[in-house]
Amino acid sequence: MSVFPVILSQEKFIHRDSLKFPLEERALQFGDGIYEVIRIYNGTYYLFDEHIDRLFRSTEAIKIKLSHSKEEIKNLLLELLERNNMAENGKVYMQISRGSAPRDHVFPTNVEPNIYAYVQAVPRNLVTLKNGVGVITHRDIRWENCYIKSLNLLPNVMAKQEAKEQGCYEAILHKDGVVTECSSSNVYLVKDGKIYTHPTTRNILHGCVRMAIERFVTDLNIPLIEEPFMLDDIANADELFLSSSTSEITPIITVDGSPVKDGMPGEITRKLQAAYEKDANIIENLIANA
Amino acid sequence: MSVFPVILSQEKFIHRDSLKFPLEERALQFGDGIYEVIRIYNGTYYLFDEHIDRLFRSTEAIKIKLSHSKEEIKNLLLELLERNNMAENGKVYMQISRGSAPRDHVFPTNVEPNIYAYVQAVPRNLVTLKNGVGVITHRDIRWENCYIKSLNLLPNVMAKQEAKEQGCYEAILHKDGVVTECSSSNVYLVKDGKIYTHPTTRNILHGCVRMAIERFVTDLNIPLIEEPFMLDDIANADELFLSSSTSEITPIITVDGSPVKDGMPGEITRKLQAAYEKDANIIENLIANA
Repeated sequence: MSVFPVILSQEKFIHRDSLKFPLEERALQFGDGIYEVIRIYNGTYYLFDEHIDRLFRSTEAIKIKLSHSKEEIKNLLLELLERNNMAENGKVYMQISRGSAPRDHVFPTNVEPNIYAYVQAVPRNLVTLKNGVGVITHRDIRWENCYIKSLNLLPNVMAKQEAKEQGCYEAILHKDGVVTECSSSNVYLVKDGKIYTHPTTRNILHGCVRMAIERFVTDLNIPLIEEPFMLDDIANADELFLSSSTSEITPIITVDGSPVKDGMPGEITRKLQAAYEKDANIIENLIANA
Repeated sequence: MSVFPVILSQEKFIHRDSLKFPLEERALQFGDGIYEVIRIYNGTYYLFDEHIDRLFRSTEAIKIKLSHSKEEIKNLLLELLERNNMAENGKVYMQISRGSAPRDHVFPTNVEPNIYAYVQAVPRNLVTLKNGVGVITHRDIRWENCYIKSLNLLPNVMAKQEAKEQGCYEAILHKDGVVTECSSSNVYLVKDGKIYTHPTTRNILHGCVRMAIERFVTDLNIPLIEEPFMLDDIANADELFLSSSTSEITPIITVDGSPVKDGMPGEITRKLQAAYEKDANIIENLIANA
């Protein structure tokens, strides 16, 4: 657990127990902010530039004006790693809100964004990476701008909880049968050697691990088709998998209790997992050596 | 400004400057909570039961388990008024989140909800109540469960800001031309002596002032038709108005720069404003005496 969260708006590092949020913080009252979760392997940020670029796309989309450059944010996050002696596997959570001001929907003026980040040790989930996970399906009732990694996560929370209560790992979200993504990950279907996934419209998050997968498939010569698939397509899928910074590339082996194909992680999923471990310079690369 | 916010989960009153939110508060990271704003006239809560009932409907909808009864919450809010010597016009903001726990979409277990509230003096906005306001129209891109008064308010914030930047007071939201509500108020159209407004489906908030209006129209013998109207209907409307706890019943006199009818507050709107002042026991009832 992080000893020193960084409060970037105050340009200083303080102990997490000393962090104090004001009563009228716009993240607290409106969810008026954005965030990133970046994976750390052996003390190094993975897909660092992808996350920082998306962080800035998100702040721009909701018109938060940052006074820090990308380089400055990166340097502070690197200093955060050092101050916490983070040399293992983990992740950083970073949040930027519009700031603190008397409650009013309208943007406050002359207010600096509130920025904070903290790191924590998180081991890779080798059991789910190896064995795969079960998921449920759930209607996608979220707002239209899910490409923004915003703090408005209540529908995601409710869907993930529903999955948990049904003994599952994730919820595949769909709009009238069209699969968009999962509650906190992207989702992919494999059929006849091709990978299908929803195009990066406003309705889904363009995942950083998805960006990495877009590179991997070129090297592996696997077609990645950015077309949405339907719930009905799952019954005839060869493989299904999901991706996120926390879940990496995780096989999906059951959907609403029914097995995907033979209920075992598929060949293309395994190839992508191996490519991921290589790309992330993961030392204990259990998938690649499996 | 409130001297003593109340932290109900800790059953105590503390000074607002001493309030400390933990790093991993679910309102802060997920918007995982709900809120109410209750109007205070001359030191008395208006539509108190309506707000408390809705507060409990909202917590139930997102499965937050409160250990307080409605009576207990009401008594604490009444004590809050006393401790702040609030005898004037104002409002209370009350927020309930699922609690504080290491960040995970799934509900934490064995965690108490975080509850806080604070009062502040807010004069009635007599200028807008008398003269009316201009509004813009804006696509309703929010999630499907807007009947829950949740902390996921980013789309509302963005729409209200857009209105502000265009010199307007509010944004009328619509789905494919069907008017739902405004960014932080309900909206009504008057035509041939009848009031039209969106039915209280999952897509809009059932406003407490709307509940009061539902009572007023019975006494006034004005038909209130709970059918959605279209953006296209506005050009031929006799009157347009909005309602919320902060805005009371406010005439809308322009929409996207075009006047509603003759650009003056209408007769039925005025009757409802007078009924409001009577119902709320407002002493300086400027509308009723206008």
